[in-house]
Amino acid sequence: MANKAITSRDVDFAKWYTDVVMAAHLCDYSSVKGCTIFEPNGYAIWEKMQKILDDMFRKTGHKNVYLPLFIPESLMRKEGELINGFAPEVAWVTHGGAKELEERLCVRPTSETLFSDYYSQKVKSYRDLPVKYNQWANVVRWEKETRPFLRSREFLWQEGHTVHATAEEAEAETLQMLNVYKDFFENYLAIPVMTGRKTEKEKFAGAEYTLTVEALMYNGVALQSSTSHYFGQKFSKAYNIQFLNKNNELEYAYQTSWGTTTRMIGALIMVHSDDDGLVLPPKIAPTKVAIIPIKDDEKVKAKIEEIYNKLNEAGIDCYIDNTDKSAGFKFAEAEVNGIPVRIEVGPRDLENGQITVARRDTKEKFQVSIDEDIVAYTNNLMETMQKDMFNKALERKNKMTYECHNLSEVEDIINNHPGFIKAMWCGDEACELRMKEIRGTKSRCILNGEKIDDKCIVCGKEASKLVLWGIQY
Amino acid sequence: MANKAITSRDVDFAKWYTDVVMAAHLCDYSSVKGCTIFEPNGYAIWEKMQKILDDMFRKTGHKNVYLPLFIPESLMRKEGELINGFAPEVAWVTHGGAKELEERLCVRPTSETLFSDYYSQKVKSYRDLPVKYNQWANVVRWEKETRPFLRSREFLWQEGHTVHATAEEAEAETLQMLNVYKDFFENYLAIPVMTGRKTEKEKFAGAEYTLTVEALMYNGVALQSSTSHYFGQKFSKAYNIQFLNKNNELEYAYQTSWGTTTRMIGALIMVHSDDDGLVLPPKIAPTKVAIIPIKDDEKVKAKIEEIYNKLNEAGIDCYIDNTDKSAGFKFAEAEVNGIPVRIEVGPRDLENGQITVARRDTKEKFQVSIDEDIVAYTNNLMETMQKDMFNKALERKNKMTYECHNLSEVEDIINNHPGFIKAMWCGDEACELRMKEIRGTKSRCILNGEKIDDKCIVCGKEASKLVLWGIQY
Repeated sequence: MANKAITSRDVDFAKWYTDVVMAAHLCDYSSVKGCTIFEPNGYAIWEKMQKILDDMFRKTGHKNVYLPLFIPESLMRKEGELINGFAPEVAWVTHGGAKELEERLCVRPTSETLFSDYYSQKVKSYRDLPVKYNQWANVVRWEKETRPFLRSREFLWQEGHTVHATAEEAEAETLQMLNVYKDFFENYLAIPVMTGRKTEKEKFAGAEYTLTVEALMYNGVALQSSTSHYFGQKFSKAYNIQFLNKNNELEYAYQTSWGTTTRMIGALIMVHSDDDGLVLPPKIAPTKVAIIPIKDDEKVKAKIEEIYNKLNEAGIDCYIDNTDKSAGFKFAEAEVNGIPVRIEVGPRDLENGQITVARRDTKEKFQVSIDEDIVAYTNNLMETMQKDMFNKALERKNKMTYECHNLSEVEDIINNHPGFIKAMWCGDEACELRMKEIRGTKSRCILNGEKIDDKCIVCGKEASKLVLWGIQY
Repeated sequence: MANKAITSRDVDFAKWYTDVVMAAHLCDYSSVKGCTIFEPNGYAIWEKMQKILDDMFRKTGHKNVYLPLFIPESLMRKEGELINGFAPEVAWVTHGGAKELEERLCVRPTSETLFSDYYSQKVKSYRDLPVKYNQWANVVRWEKETRPFLRSREFLWQEGHTVHATAEEAEAETLQMLNVYKDFFENYLAIPVMTGRKTEKEKFAGAEYTLTVEALMYNGVALQSSTSHYFGQKFSKAYNIQFLNKNNELEYAYQTSWGTTTRMIGALIMVHSDDDGLVLPPKIAPTKVAIIPIKDDEKVKAKIEEIYNKLNEAGIDCYIDNTDKSAGFKFAEAEVNGIPVRIEVGPRDLENGQITVARRDTKEKFQVSIDEDIVAYTNNLMETMQKDMFNKALERKNKMTYECHNLSEVEDIINNHPGFIKAMWCGDEACELRMKEIRGTKSRCILNGEKIDDKCIVCGKEASKLVLWGIQY
């Protein structure tokens, strides 16, 4: 019954992923090397994500702004660590029309420099603080490989940039936004996540520290899914963001930034989808219900319109598939596109006073009486699906999270059945590099307050940090 | 009483415009030459515009997509007229990281080329048509001057790109989208517009013809506000978009594109605002009501919260100004920011069973009984304001639209009291160029089915076209 255009995910996961992306018309390659096209089905998921996250950002007191696409090289170079981190992967504009520019401009890979420059003009006194802005934008990083949603030279994201009068307030903001992302992943995307602080080696260039949301894909590979950075005064010193504090003294401000990208669509696919195509948690699905007539028949048509009108009035996005394709073809199309609920109406069913409702995630079909309140039924079903999808992903993640006490255990897991690895670490970068030799196993984050051993898994020296490790996208 | 930070618009219109933009915190200059920063108040207006237009686009059957920021030079060059039109004003990316690119990439000034390239892959049969996509994006044109919202090297816009099986359908789409823009301008922005076809000289590079929405600013200068282009088969031939038609013959497809930009924010300012700052039609104002306590008092506080809760529950965006500024300062701030309705609550008013409601556009103040239904009152007032603002702008536009029968009349108007000029034209480009000598007077559009004379205003030869002329931004 599996979709013929889609390779099985247990046979070739990478191929399966691309097949799902193409079959569900989420994304396409373009003639521009390294850049992809967001097709309507894929872009609609991004818009849904934007809407939900944007509301969460507003509720936590943030406002949207829009800053320039270009950054003059000299401005970019003011904060040394940032430019060192990004220099190998920025695109440079050197000409405007026929004229060579006096100073070349980089296409923003991220906007800390521009926001800091702007804030240096804007922030004068503690009364101006906090400033809590967010930006929805495209960014460019000159990647060598291209994988739809996961890696491309241009991608879409949001970047929050805030300024505070105290370190405590900025650190609270950093943690708050991490929790906003965690909430979004778990309660909307139905993806359980692990959170914690990145090691020095893995943190964002220019940050004091980076908090991260890490998710585990179906194939055991980890995906860094959102990050929230505490900058302390690093950027405020480089860009001269000073304010008069309550004691009337000039002080450098405290900053944060936090972001998440269209990569989340990749996570959605790799956690929930199957060999029949896309599977979406109802809360994030742009279209919730497909209504499909089994036969062209007056009674069927009337019933279908009645259902459509009821769902539509209740604000449940749905469509009637009235094309001249076969019913089986329509079912498969709704499946591959990840429509959570399918309602089938046929003349025989109607004679028995029934319609058929199918859920996408489990493929279960239910006979439902035509007297049932279809709006309530659909809403209940979608709520159950949302919970079930999260629990299924949580169970998988728990089963694929392993505690390791020595390197051969790590090697066994990474080579045979990858997943999250919990292991103690002494804090030494050399030990991180040794782990990386095991097929690129990297520290994902330091887990707070947990401990499974007293010694570093690599060097055997005393260790107080429990680290989550994994191979990554 | 006028805001001290704002030059009078009758004294220096250009300065007044920039003063309003800055005083209302709509936009700021950036350290990136030619690029501006959309501050929260300005960006919120853009988001409101996006939301309304996006719904209108969906209702007319369009879907959103996102195509790359970059266009390879060779792809850009396939349609000769387009590249000739844009070559002097595109930005070129020549390096990715440290490496020089094999082919330089232009930062999109518009995306006909990319959409056409994409459609050439996607469209195979008449069954695939129509394709009706829209994109919200940033675009770059290497302008020499910078004026907030009106002219900058990067701006935000939407661009619709559609493909059809017949010329008739594509032309109907071109006209439909023109009317969507007209509807949006008149019924949301409260800006009366003139619409018609551009002359050959003024049409979009690469189009068969261009339809345009033209608005008149307070100072009599015309603003091209949205355009809708019919391409016929020009791009489909250059990019090979062929489909099998119903007769099973290969045919080149018919295309349109249409777009509008952040420039609309400039139009809003230049049509409605005054010497006290921004004035926004209620339907486009992100925040509708400012609630201001005259005094810090328990009864006042209780009343203000009651009003806030009622408005908020009714979905009317509002805020309470509880800062420690004076009431007068708060009034001025709500005024400069263009909040349509201001509700003032003071202890003396309350003793008399009243509150005060002020409308931003006319500055009128009303004593309103505390027993009045404040939600209904506010909604009614906003409806009245919306209508009044449109009518006021319409009256001004009509008063400033002149019929001219000879060039000295044109000169008199342009030199002394500019506005829209209606005059007959023979169709000859030489006559257009002669008009341009009068302080840059350009044809705005050809008006349909009207006629005020038999002869061309310039050459005196027979003329059947009534043209709208004006000086422009």
